[in-house]
Amino acid sequence: MAFVLGENQYGKAENRIVRIYRDTARHEIKDVNVSTSLRGDFTAAHTAGDQSRVLPTDSQKQTAYAYAKAPGIGAIEDYALLLGRHFVDDVEPVTGARIEVEEFGWRRVGDHDHTFVRTGEEIRRTVVTIDGKGAGPDGEGAGQHAWVVSGFRDLVVLKSTGSQFWGFLEDEYTVLEPTRDRVMATSLVAWWRFGDVDLGSVAYDDVYARAKDLMVTTFAELESLALQQTLHAMGEAVLTAVPEIVEVRFSAPNKHHFVYDLARFGLENPGEVFHADDRPYGLIQASIRRDDAPDSGLAWYTVPGFA
Amino acid sequence: MAFVLGENQYGKAENRIVRIYRDTARHEIKDVNVSTSLRGDFTAAHTAGDQSRVLPTDSQKQTAYAYAKAPGIGAIEDYALLLGRHFVDDVEPVTGARIEVEEFGWRRVGDHDHTFVRTGEEIRRTVVTIDGKGAGPDGEGAGQHAWVVSGFRDLVVLKSTGSQFWGFLEDEYTVLEPTRDRVMATSLVAWWRFGDVDLGSVAYDDVYARAKDLMVTTFAELESLALQQTLHAMGEAVLTAVPEIVEVRFSAPNKHHFVYDLARFGLENPGEVFHADDRPYGLIQASIRRDDAPDSGLAWYTVPGFA
Amino acid sequence: MAFVLGENQYGKAENRIVRIYRDTARHEIKDVNVSTSLRGDFTAAHTAGDQSRVLPTDSQKQTAYAYAKAPGIGAIEDYALLLGRHFVDDVEPVTGARIEVEEFGWRRVGDHDHTFVRTGEEIRRTVVTIDGKGAGPDGEGAGQHAWVVSGFRDLVVLKSTGSQFWGFLEDEYTVLEPTRDRVMATSLVAWWRFGDVDLGSVAYDDVYARAKDLMVTTFAELESLALQQTLHAMGEAVLTAVPEIVEVRFSAPNKHHFVYDLARFGLENPGEVFHADDRPYGLIQASIRRDDAPDSGLAWYTVPGFA
Amino acid sequence: MAFVLGENQYGKAENRIVRIYRDTARHEIKDVNVSTSLRGDFTAAHTAGDQSRVLPTDSQKQTAYAYAKAPGIGAIEDYALLLGRHFVDDVEPVTGARIEVEEFGWRRVGDHDHTFVRTGEEIRRTVVTIDGKGAGPDGEGAGQHAWVVSGFRDLVVLKSTGSQFWGFLEDEYTVLEPTRDRVMATSLVAWWRFGDVDLGSVAYDDVYARAKDLMVTTFAELESLALQQTLHAMGEAVLTAVPEIVEVRFSAPNKHHFVYDLARFGLENPGEVFHADDRPYGLIQASIRRDDAPDSGLAWYTVPGFA
Repeated sequence: MAFVLGENQYGKAENRIVRIYRDTARHEIKDVNVSTSLRGDFTAAHTAGDQSRVLPTDSQKQTAYAYAKAPGIGAIEDYALLLGRHFVDDVEPVTGARIEVEEFGWRRVGDHDHTFVRTGEEIRRTVVTIDGKGAGPDGEGAGQHAWVVSGFRDLVVLKSTGSQFWGFLEDEYTVLEPTRDRVMATSLVAWWRFGDVDLGSVAYDDVYARAKDLMVTTFAELESLALQQTLHAMGEAVLTAVPEIVEVRFSAPNKHHFVYDLARFGLENPGEVFHADDRPYGLIQASIRRDDAPDSGLAWYTVPGFA
Repeated sequence: MAFVLGENQYGKAENRIVRIYRDTARHEIKDVNVSTSLRGDFTAAHTAGDQSRVLPTDSQKQTAYAYAKAPGIGAIEDYALLLGRHFVDDVEPVTGARIEVEEFGWRRVGDHDHTFVRTGEEIRRTVVTIDGKGAGPDGEGAGQHAWVVSGFRDLVVLKSTGSQFWGFLEDEYTVLEPTRDRVMATSLVAWWRFGDVDLGSVAYDDVYARAKDLMVTTFAELESLALQQTLHAMGEAVLTAVPEIVEVRFSAPNKHHFVYDLARFGLENPGEVFHADDRPYGLIQASIRRDDAPDSGLAWYTVPGFA
Repeated sequence: MAFVLGENQYGKAENRIVRIYRDTARHEIKDVNVSTSLRGDFTAAHTAGDQSRVLPTDSQKQTAYAYAKAPGIGAIEDYALLLGRHFVDDVEPVTGARIEVEEFGWRRVGDHDHTFVRTGEEIRRTVVTIDGKGAGPDGEGAGQHAWVVSGFRDLVVLKSTGSQFWGFLEDEYTVLEPTRDRVMATSLVAWWRFGDVDLGSVAYDDVYARAKDLMVTTFAELESLALQQTLHAMGEAVLTAVPEIVEVRFSAPNKHHFVYDLARFGLENPGEVFHADDRPYGLIQASIRRDDAPDSGLAWYTVPGFA
Repeated sequence: MAFVLGENQYGKAENRIVRIYRDTARHEIKDVNVSTSLRGDFTAAHTAGDQSRVLPTDSQKQTAYAYAKAPGIGAIEDYALLLGRHFVDDVEPVTGARIEVEEFGWRRVGDHDHTFVRTGEEIRRTVVTIDGKGAGPDGEGAGQHAWVVSGFRDLVVLKSTGSQFWGFLEDEYTVLEPTRDRVMATSLVAWWRFGDVDLGSVAYDDVYARAKDLMVTTFAELESLALQQTLHAMGEAVLTAVPEIVEVRFSAPNKHHFVYDLARFGLENPGEVFHADDRPYGLIQASIRRDDAPDSGLAWYTVPGFA
């Protein structure tokens, strides 16, 4: 009877880094949550406790903070790519890395130079996966490949009409009534995969703004026959307009709003008063991609929230 | 040895009600979390299980939903006052009520008629306390009194400079270094008490907007020597400009941002890279009131978050 | 128009301290969450930012950790009393203190000397309030008074029968059906106040074990006509058997378990399959005390969770 | 430019089902959280909103509750297998299913017949994946395959000595000091995969008890040189003693306990007083399997928490 070490990685999770740019009186703020994981042949650490090839998670943490100073944090994807490539290229036993960055948004108080209010809409994030040692300044050397998946979580959208649900399959457990008018709401998780582009020169912030806007606008404008249909149209809109993106994935809880029975009290309720229920909830998970999208490789391997 | 029933109240907590106004194609949304509690002489229920004077919590729930239809939900304070007065005036054994309402904000997608994105900044709330049976249409009859306390939670504000902390008392456990420039951040809980005004005709939404704006603006503009000082100035600004308010209370965690030590890696860090720590945190709780404020009575009796 | 500084206190919240006793090979563990707040005349800090009378929250933190070493942490009430009295007696401007300690339970792995599993039942806690400068070794000098309130949160108990609910008051919003057999479940918050005893020599751990046991046993054994009745009987059992305690308070969410309608599928469901709902929930808050209990003074002033 | 529907599934998440067995006066309780997802060719729903092949998530919910009555809930793995096979075998368009069940533990109050306290240690869970239509009573027909992965989350274990960390790789960002004695603590997520056994006749409850016990005991007894080594030994112990299991996976946050600096106050602190930090934390993810383990197929495809 023999046992084999299987998949493994290790790192430092949830480094809560705040970077202030204060070169002028008008400050800028970047507020991120950084998690790093390293891969390689660490068999001896697992089987014998031998740490000689293991860079401590504490060192990974120090590096994340140091990189927040220089090169600094612009688009989170660029920061994650540089941090990940550093680990793979500069630490001998490391052959792969996974860098996840979440970003919390802030807006200025009025137009104040150095005071900010945290915005609570969606939380932006990226997962960058590096595989193989690099060579050359672009980091895409001999055997190295990098994948960037970006998106957001917790974007809560609701439409108070313009959503239907009928014509569904019925079995012996089906008691749901069809409806031509319902509230549709979700707390959206979205991810998009970048294709065979030069990852070092993508305008990530701009892509983010456009992708989010297309999703929300499509959600608003489509008369929906199903959440599946809405998500598919949202993905299609992004793929149509954003050439850098080759695949989109959604995980969308159907946050149920039940029409409350007020007839018992002599009150009509034509879609006006709802109970917003917590659990259970429908959960729709779907993806859409270009038919010529490159193979996804390790891109989705460790993306949380899609399963 | 004799025992006495002490303070008690009972109700239905966290009714998650969504009210859509759809009289025209341009919908409006109110999204609230309603908790009701009733008081009175319910001794027999406690000592003998006799429910004959106890209106079930389920009935309280039904009422909260019915009142969301009519009279409907405008300012949460008005809804809470009407709901609370109904319980006290219309249910014989009830002599007091506590109604808490939280409101979650939404903004339109662009200018769309019926699609909304939930905003995640602060959560607005009110606690209305009614004591004594009313008489007459204004509800302020013989022995009835009503108190309204309003405010918000989870407003996260940060200033990246303009905050100092020095000159403090030192004892044998003091190791903190004084500083003339630090990040100051808090997740603000604010409450304000309304005075002897006609509670049925206050422009609560307008008061809310002005109070929040004054707080945030003062936070931004004051060069701070202590969070205490900043809070006091914020309260003063509100009391000065909003005559309906007679008292302001704050509970403000000092969300610590520690300058990260990068000198070990040959990097200067003049207030640029911070670790945002979770726990422990400073916690400043303070209040300010007009010197001629009427007695607070039961106003603060069940306000959460200030202790 | 003049404004007055109102109630205020400040401190360091949620110091997560773990204390290991390792004098022998058989270790002991205490795992606590400590929050301190100080009171006194700190007007200048609020009105002018003058810190000269303000002991920093950081110093309070250091003290909490130092006291975890010596005198150490036995019963959390003793630790809190000593820590609170230190602040009031040894720091000149401080005239009052509030110390809250939560304790997380651990059990040994088997009978292992130094390995533990965290138990997840209830979380024990205490709030100690000190008012006035002390004199003499017992800390109850001239004008000093101390109050100790102890209890727990998150004790989830359920009985699958032996609970009824009928005979209640009905109004026009009442649609609830009476029942002679239902599931009763709550996530119990309990607090008990100690009376005029020598607080320095109470066997707090023993009181805790007895009070919790009496509450749970009474919950189990009483055929319940209402959660109010059950809580009252639980408090009565404690007051009867534990002379150190003079008052008990409960905050008990009624965690609803709804019988699921399976008749639609040709299945009988005589109290076998339930939906455990999240929100809304009933909330019963009640207290019971000895008729000769001493005045509660500041005991309940800052006890969280009862409102 | 053509787009393709990619991976997708849909279902009802977090059905909170409580099942009471009350055939005798001595009741039994099963408390579970059930999430179902279905797969198949649902292209028309995504591209055109055509629901004719879509069994509503509401029907999935009804089925989960009906199955809680009959066949009932014994081991969660058996319940999940039966529920999943029902969807795949009895609903025409469904060709695959994912059933996740979490189970919350309860203990009796003393030896009471129908009153229980919820235990808060780990939460047990399983993810069952079914692929392909079945035939015959054992459900493993023509093209059907089933995978069962079981485990737990939130088991918090700590050893106060018997853990070392030294001899690690150092780079320019390494400032960590090696140690021969530290606290090691984790909130363990464990999963184990069942091999080519008759899944309908595994004694899942017994396997669970043995696997958990072996893990915890090994954690206690091994003098640890690294969390990786401890996890590997834990997996090895399970694979050695439990033949039904062919692979084990762990996700283990290293919950850091930092020795608190008390020397500043003239106090020695030889591993007695610690600050338990929240974030960041080390995160070790590792797996171990038999060298002749069958291919994992879809077993790990949607297992949360390992990434």
